[in-house]
Amino acid sequence: MRRSKVYIALLHYPMYNKNMDIITTSITNLDLHDIARAARTYDVEGMYIVHPSPNQHKLAGEILAYWQEGYGGKYNNDRQEAFRLLRLVGDLPAVTEAIKLETGQDAVVVATDARPYSDTVKYRDLRSDILETDRSYLILFGTGWGIARELLSQCDRILEPIAGTSEYNHLSVRSAVSIILDRLLGEAWYNI
Amino acid sequence: MRRSKVYIALLHYPMYNKNMDIITTSITNLDLHDIARAARTYDVEGMYIVHPSPNQHKLAGEILAYWQEGYGGKYNNDRQEAFRLLRLVGDLPAVTEAIKLETGQDAVVVATDARPYSDTVKYRDLRSDILETDRSYLILFGTGWGIARELLSQCDRILEPIAGTSEYNHLSVRSAVSIILDRLLGEAWYNI
Repeated sequence: MRRSKVYIALLHYPMYNKNMDIITTSITNLDLHDIARAARTYDVEGMYIVHPSPNQHKLAGEILAYWQEGYGGKYNNDRQEAFRLLRLVGDLPAVTEAIKLETGQDAVVVATDARPYSDTVKYRDLRSDILETDRSYLILFGTGWGIARELLSQCDRILEPIAGTSEYNHLSVRSAVSIILDRLLGEAWYNI
Repeated sequence: MRRSKVYIALLHYPMYNKNMDIITTSITNLDLHDIARAARTYDVEGMYIVHPSPNQHKLAGEILAYWQEGYGGKYNNDRQEAFRLLRLVGDLPAVTEAIKLETGQDAVVVATDARPYSDTVKYRDLRSDILETDRSYLILFGTGWGIARELLSQCDRILEPIAGTSEYNHLSVRSAVSIILDRLLGEAWYNI
């Protein structure tokens, strides 16, 4: 039984683009669907969509309303159940404040990135911390070409990158979230 | 070091819909992108997109050409590298024949499904078979509401479903492929 509460956030700013400029990415419909379904599967407490632009909030708000309260949710109840986890906010402090209000404690903020950084936390260690301590964890996922270094340096921990079997490390954020939730929160299939 | 060759196939017929009717699903652009990127990350030998309809082949063929040879591939070389794994065929026998031609042996055909079936193979066992024997494996992924039972019953093995931490088992096929490739072919993060 997991003792910690786990939240995830999908960030759209400050991200890198291909040329390592700092940019704001757009909200992508399928990110919401795929990541909400994975979050629900692994019993995540909440999934924050973080974007600074009111226009993007309007767009994402319409998608959320369709699946949370509108026809989409009636037609596909499983999708509605996943979309219930989604919350739309403007910046990272709004996420950490909401979690503090909900849990009464500061969340341990864990960034994820495909690039190697020094002092990253290993999957096995973070997994046992989550399972065995009474804390709140917030796991951050980036879009575009990844989370800007300045924001990464403010996080409590950085999770080691996913190493596949090749030098190629260009998973979609949808794949990365799925694999990371499975490693941190999934059944211990390797022991069964 | 992995000793077996591993191929994957994304099937669009015969699938179930929500009401358990047998249907043909459509090819989805983002399935190609996300699954090709995951396949490349985990060093899969080839990824077959299987669809019976010539119209869908035309559509998918245009997407493939854009990323394999056209502007997309020039602009984003990583994507081109992933798309090189993609092959478009009409049915499952075309996949198994192509693999036999390439490897000189019949592939062990492993179906995946979110539903529980009896006599499923465990992740740990399939992983060690793939790592330690000199064979070819073809892992089948369904779309819609899953692969029709008649086809499942013709496969050599059925892989056990992904159990998350809840009763909810509605991952996208993009998430399911990513998690299954990570469990079967990824680094042994749980031992490190």
